[in-house]
Amino acid sequence: MTRLSLQPSRHPADYAFTHRLRTRFAETDAMGIIHHAAYLPYLEEARVEYLRAIGYPYDAVRDGSGTQGDAVEFAVLEASVHYRRALRFDDEVQVHLVVGAVTRATFQIAYLLTVDGDVRATAVTVHGAVDRTGRPTRLPPWVRDVHAGASDTGVDS
Amino acid sequence: MTRLSLQPSRHPADYAFTHRLRTRFAETDAMGIIHHAAYLPYLEEARVEYLRAIGYPYDAVRDGSGTQGDAVEFAVLEASVHYRRALRFDDEVQVHLVVGAVTRATFQIAYLLTVDGDVRATAVTVHGAVDRTGRPTRLPPWVRDVHAGASDTGVDS
Amino acid sequence: MTRLSLQPSRHPADYAFTHRLRTRFAETDAMGIIHHAAYLPYLEEARVEYLRAIGYPYDAVRDGSGTQGDAVEFAVLEASVHYRRALRFDDEVQVHLVVGAVTRATFQIAYLLTVDGDVRATAVTVHGAVDRTGRPTRLPPWVRDVHAGASDTGVDS
Amino acid sequence: MTRLSLQPSRHPADYAFTHRLRTRFAETDAMGIIHHAAYLPYLEEARVEYLRAIGYPYDAVRDGSGTQGDAVEFAVLEASVHYRRALRFDDEVQVHLVVGAVTRATFQIAYLLTVDGDVRATAVTVHGAVDRTGRPTRLPPWVRDVHAGASDTGVDS
Repeated sequence: MTRLSLQPSRHPADYAFTHRLRTRFAETDAMGIIHHAAYLPYLEEARVEYLRAIGYPYDAVRDGSGTQGDAVEFAVLEASVHYRRALRFDDEVQVHLVVGAVTRATFQIAYLLTVDGDVRATAVTVHGAVDRTGRPTRLPPWVRDVHAGASDTGVDS
Repeated sequence: MTRLSLQPSRHPADYAFTHRLRTRFAETDAMGIIHHAAYLPYLEEARVEYLRAIGYPYDAVRDGSGTQGDAVEFAVLEASVHYRRALRFDDEVQVHLVVGAVTRATFQIAYLLTVDGDVRATAVTVHGAVDRTGRPTRLPPWVRDVHAGASDTGVDS
Repeated sequence: MTRLSLQPSRHPADYAFTHRLRTRFAETDAMGIIHHAAYLPYLEEARVEYLRAIGYPYDAVRDGSGTQGDAVEFAVLEASVHYRRALRFDDEVQVHLVVGAVTRATFQIAYLLTVDGDVRATAVTVHGAVDRTGRPTRLPPWVRDVHAGASDTGVDS
Repeated sequence: MTRLSLQPSRHPADYAFTHRLRTRFAETDAMGIIHHAAYLPYLEEARVEYLRAIGYPYDAVRDGSGTQGDAVEFAVLEASVHYRRALRFDDEVQVHLVVGAVTRATFQIAYLLTVDGDVRATAVTVHGAVDRTGRPTRLPPWVRDVHAGASDTGVDS
């Protein structure tokens, strides 16, 4: 897991964006908590809302519409989740995120999940751009710009 | 992610157990590949089959039946996946696993996913025992025994 | 499928409640559309929001807190979905629903899914109350009251 | 739900094919049973194995390789499940299926899910062929042939 270098902070103030979602009953398991695999779609949903918020809606990124360059998809290269306290059915979760560790070919995102300010999980994902045939390609320049804008946060990278 | 210490090997011979599964169409995404969140249930399915193979079926572990001690569940404390090459619909996947890094309260499992010998992903999960109320409890002694039996593999722990 | 008797209308005005949600990338499949199994959690999410809106939050119903009677869960006895036009990634979906066909032991819900007023799917689910051990039990009286309040809609029951 | 006409039998002998699968812990919910949405991927997995068994592997059907005609996908037009008795974690499920009600543009499949001979669910799905752009197209001729071969079963169509 060599590339995964971000250390997600446990302080919401260290993050650039927050997305709110509510857990689903379908995501619970027989332990009575949210199943651990359900967290990855939560992170993804937050990424999608973040891209929309900064003016790069992911469906436009994927089909190359707008002025932001060629069509690319952001493949997930690595994902790591630290489950600190269980989420439960009907919890309203704040997913905080910040982009970090941008290279020519990859970027990382750190996440903090909280419920009413209480830390539930931290996570990191590593992404690389691929073209529509699935081949790795350079990151669009705006990804680096996004990071530059967010890089004065307190997250280590 | 301090506890996550195993470095999963890319050689099937370093693993103690192999479970075969086939990817589902429901697990694909609009990139035409298996969605990254689908891998965590693959790891879990392999864990369940491993427990059955070594004589500790997980449903018996959960309800405390048999002679292996009190009812415990193995909560997932951390999970980390490195996606090396995409899985696709209808791929027959070999999920190799080995237990490592057993402490009084936690154990780790390293995974290697291959298709026809080709490496697709590596992963590590960290687990702790909880009782039926969700409270952390000591690992059953047999978990340590399982690790002792597997510890002469080439996986670093 | 003898109990499934509601005929869901294709007109939003025939429904008692509308819940908005956005499709997730994790819910797409290799056909480039939302996988058909993802619709059932959409219906469930709408049911949960409907119960909250009418003053019977499902987690309170499940644990019997508040004044609405004994703890019950609403098991799904039947579910039927008619996929009329595909949903796609990032679609903002309106899930319209109305309760109908209430008996002593079961109730049905009809659903209409639209995107920008365009019909995408209709569905019906049939539910029965079960206690915490999974045994069928009588419906709480408020379910019948809810239906009485909604029964002057145009949905056949 | 006008097209959905099959009445699934509760007798395994009325079905043309049986696929065995094991429920996953990830598919359980906080009621301690398999969540109702998990059944649709079970049906799909059984369809895929059936197509493989009769010589039309679905990935070959989808990319038009082999001699069976143009590339088509089988869109799900309707799906209906009758949950008769809960499935639980680690249950070994027999998914029985038979093709019926074939028209020029659609076909239906009836399903019976059993555990140790005990009926757990019945279901019907309705499918139509679409080309790679998602447009409806004629069914490949072999679908009709498959049905002709199976039509002397006891399932009403």
